[in-house]
Amino acid sequence: MSNSNDLKVAVAGLGTVGGGVLDLLDAQADVLRQRAGRTVRLVACSALVKRDPMPKEAAFYPDARAMARDADYDVLVELIGGGDGIALDIVTTALERGRSVVTANKAMIAHHGLKLANLAQEKDVSLGFEASVAGAIPIIKTLREGLAGNHVSRVMGILNGTCNYILTTMRASGRDFADVLAEAQALGYAEADPTFDIDGIDTAHKLSILAGLAFSMPVDIASVGCEGIRHVSALDIQFADELGYRIKLLGVAERGPDGVRANVYPTMVPLASPLAHVDGVMNAVVTESDFAGRTILGGRGAGARPTASAVVSDLVDLARGAHLPMFGVPVDQLQTYPQVPSALRRTACYIRLTVTDEPGVLADIASALRDEKISMEQVLQRSRSPSETVPVVLILHETDEASLARAIDRISALPTVADRPHPIRIEAM
Amino acid sequence: MSNSNDLKVAVAGLGTVGGGVLDLLDAQADVLRQRAGRTVRLVACSALVKRDPMPKEAAFYPDARAMARDADYDVLVELIGGGDGIALDIVTTALERGRSVVTANKAMIAHHGLKLANLAQEKDVSLGFEASVAGAIPIIKTLREGLAGNHVSRVMGILNGTCNYILTTMRASGRDFADVLAEAQALGYAEADPTFDIDGIDTAHKLSILAGLAFSMPVDIASVGCEGIRHVSALDIQFADELGYRIKLLGVAERGPDGVRANVYPTMVPLASPLAHVDGVMNAVVTESDFAGRTILGGRGAGARPTASAVVSDLVDLARGAHLPMFGVPVDQLQTYPQVPSALRRTACYIRLTVTDEPGVLADIASALRDEKISMEQVLQRSRSPSETVPVVLILHETDEASLARAIDRISALPTVADRPHPIRIEAM
Repeated sequence: MSNSNDLKVAVAGLGTVGGGVLDLLDAQADVLRQRAGRTVRLVACSALVKRDPMPKEAAFYPDARAMARDADYDVLVELIGGGDGIALDIVTTALERGRSVVTANKAMIAHHGLKLANLAQEKDVSLGFEASVAGAIPIIKTLREGLAGNHVSRVMGILNGTCNYILTTMRASGRDFADVLAEAQALGYAEADPTFDIDGIDTAHKLSILAGLAFSMPVDIASVGCEGIRHVSALDIQFADELGYRIKLLGVAERGPDGVRANVYPTMVPLASPLAHVDGVMNAVVTESDFAGRTILGGRGAGARPTASAVVSDLVDLARGAHLPMFGVPVDQLQTYPQVPSALRRTACYIRLTVTDEPGVLADIASALRDEKISMEQVLQRSRSPSETVPVVLILHETDEASLARAIDRISALPTVADRPHPIRIEAM
Repeated sequence: MSNSNDLKVAVAGLGTVGGGVLDLLDAQADVLRQRAGRTVRLVACSALVKRDPMPKEAAFYPDARAMARDADYDVLVELIGGGDGIALDIVTTALERGRSVVTANKAMIAHHGLKLANLAQEKDVSLGFEASVAGAIPIIKTLREGLAGNHVSRVMGILNGTCNYILTTMRASGRDFADVLAEAQALGYAEADPTFDIDGIDTAHKLSILAGLAFSMPVDIASVGCEGIRHVSALDIQFADELGYRIKLLGVAERGPDGVRANVYPTMVPLASPLAHVDGVMNAVVTESDFAGRTILGGRGAGARPTASAVVSDLVDLARGAHLPMFGVPVDQLQTYPQVPSALRRTACYIRLTVTDEPGVLADIASALRDEKISMEQVLQRSRSPSETVPVVLILHETDEASLARAIDRISALPTVADRPHPIRIEAM
C-alpha cells in the first residue's frame, strides 16, 4: 500500500551492499515503520544485472542515470562506488532535482565532499554518508551530533578491515606479508588488485572524511599523507610483540596550535591502548575532545549487513525529518587550517636495521643519531652470528620527520647496514 | 544579545555536572551557535547556593520549582538528581508547560521513564537523557538512531566507574575489596555511603534504560536482577587472571525467544573481549544486533565535563529541530516481553570454595555437581597443606540458575567446605 507520506527510496547498485540494503528494508519493514514514523518504501532500483528475486513493487532501471533523472523518489541511495563516473553523476542529478542522497561512497566524499555539501545546501536537502566510514560504527553521527559540544583535537582509527585482517593473521601465524595477502585474496578478504586497501588509500579516504567532520573543515584528500603495510615484515611484528606493541594501520588526524595534519601509516600501538585489541576485520575509531575526553567506537567496518545498517540509519534519520548540514555546520562556516608540514611533524618511532655483525656497528648508528640530535629509548639485537647479518631494532624518542629522514640517510649509508629501513611510527596514546 | 530564535535554557542544579554544563555553554558558545544554527542561551538557573561567578545574563532562582513554573525557557535541564522529589516535580512541571527537558537523571528515568515519555508525547515535546547513561559515550543516540535498522538482541556494559575503579585497583595492587573501597572513598572516587554504586543499583538503573531503548519496551527497573561487588575477593581476581579472565561488574540485558532478561552482576570477562581491557573509571557498552553485528562504545562514564558533553549534545539536537519519541517509537508501540524467570536463566560460572584439604573432598564436590547434571570445565586447586583450608576453584559449563543454586546448597552442606560460595557468572562473548 503506497501512501503520499511514505519515504520513497531509489537504490542504485545491487551488489553486496545494495543487496544488504534490500534485505534489511524487507526484513525490518515493520520496525522501520515504527521508528521512522512512516513507511520507508523502495520505489526503484538500478543495476547492470537484475537481482533474483527482484523486489516486486520497485521499478527496475538498467541505467542508473535514467533512474536518477526520471524516477519519482525522495532519496537516492548510491551504492555503485568509485570517486567519479556514474556515482558522482547520479548523486549530482538527485541533488539538483532537490532530492536527498544517502551514500556509502568514501572515495566520492573524499574527492568531492565540499562540492556536494554546497549543492545539497543550495537545494536544501540532505546528504547522508554514515556508511562511508567504518561500516556499522556510528562515527559520522557521533562526530556531528554526539560530540557537538566539543572541540575535537584528534581522531584516529583502524579503518580498513583487509589490512587489519592481514596484520592480525601475520601475528597469529608468524607468516610474512606476501603469503598472508595471497591467502586473503584466495578467501575473498582482499581484492585481486589489493592496492587500494594495502597501500592505505582506502584508509586515507575515510580519514579525510573524519577529519572534515571532526575539525569542521573542508574535506581535503590531497593533504593526507599515505603509507601502506607492504613493508611490514613478520620480524617487525615479532619485535613489536616483544616490546609490548601491536602493529596496526592507523589513520590519524590531529589539530594543534600549528594547524592540522592527517596521516595514514602502520603504527606501533601500545598494548594498553584499546586499539591494540581490535583484531581481524574489525574497525575502531578513537576521538579525543576537550569535554568528552577520549572515546572509542568499534565494530564491523564492512560487509553487506553492517554497511546496510549504516545506510538505513541515514534513511530513518531522513524519514524522521532530520536535516543537518553535511559536515555539521553550513559550508561557509567550515574553517581551513594551515597544514602542518610533514618535515615538522613529530613522532617517536621504531626502526629495524639489517646489519653485519661486526664490532663498532652500534657505535656508528648511535653517532648518526646523535648528529641529528635524536635520542634512543631502546636498542634490541636479536642474536650474534659474526660476519652474518642480524636484525637490530631501535626505538627512538620523539623527533621531527626531517631529522629522522636525515638520520636514516646517514644510517643507510653505513657499509655495515644492508637495506634502507622503513620506520614505523609510535603514536602517543 | 537576545533573539527570539535563541534556544532558551534553564538549568536546575549547579553541582558538579551543572557547573560543567555552564562552563561548556560559555567556553563553546561560538561553535555551538554554528552547529545548532542558533544561539543556545542560558536564561535561568537554580541552586541552593549561588555559584561564583554566576553567569551574568541568567536569572537566579533559589527554588527550582519556582524556576520550572515561572521562568521563560524552551528547555529545562534537570541536574538535581534523585528518582523522585524535586527532580521529578520540575521535569513534570516543564513537560506540562509544553517545554522540552534534558536530564542526566538515571534514577528518575529508570523509575518514571514510561510516565515521562507519555507526558512528553502528549505535550509534543522532547525529553533528552543521553547524559543519564555512560557519560560522554553516545549510547542513547546509538541505540535510538545509529542502530535504527536493527533488532538488538543483547546490550551489556561496564556502566559504573566506581566499581570498575575498585576492581581495576584490586587487580593492580592485589589488595582486598574493603581496603580499596576505603581508599576510593578517601580519594573521592566513591561516596561516603557507597551502596548505590557497589551494590549495583546505579548499574541497574542504567541497564533498565538501555534495555528499554534496545528492545523498544517500557523501562522496568523492577525486573532487573541486581548483585554487587562486595563479595569479590583479591583471591577471585587472582584466579581470574590465571584463567584468562578479568572480573567486571556488568549490566547485561538480553532478548531471546523466551523473552527478556536483565541482570547486574560481577562477571568473568574473557581477555579476548574488548570489555576486559576497559579499566579504571572508564565505561563501555557492547551491543549485538542482527545487521550491525557487535559494536562497542567506550569512554568516560562520569565527571563534570564528559556529562556536560552529553547534556549539551541533547541541547544541540533540540536546537537543530530534532524531535524523536523518548524511546525511539511512540509509547503505544512499545512492546512488553515475558521476563525470563531467573531460575531458567542459563550461564556458565566460576565458583571458589574454601575446603579442608582432605582426601575425597573433590569427589564429594564432583558428585554434588553430577547430581544436578552440571558438568565441570576446569578445577584448580591452589596448594596442598594437609588439614588446613585451601581454595578450590571450579569452572562450570552452562547450566540453569535453579540447578546451580541446588548444587551450591549441596556443596555448602559438605563438612569439608567452609563457607557458602558466591558464583561469578561467565558471559558468552
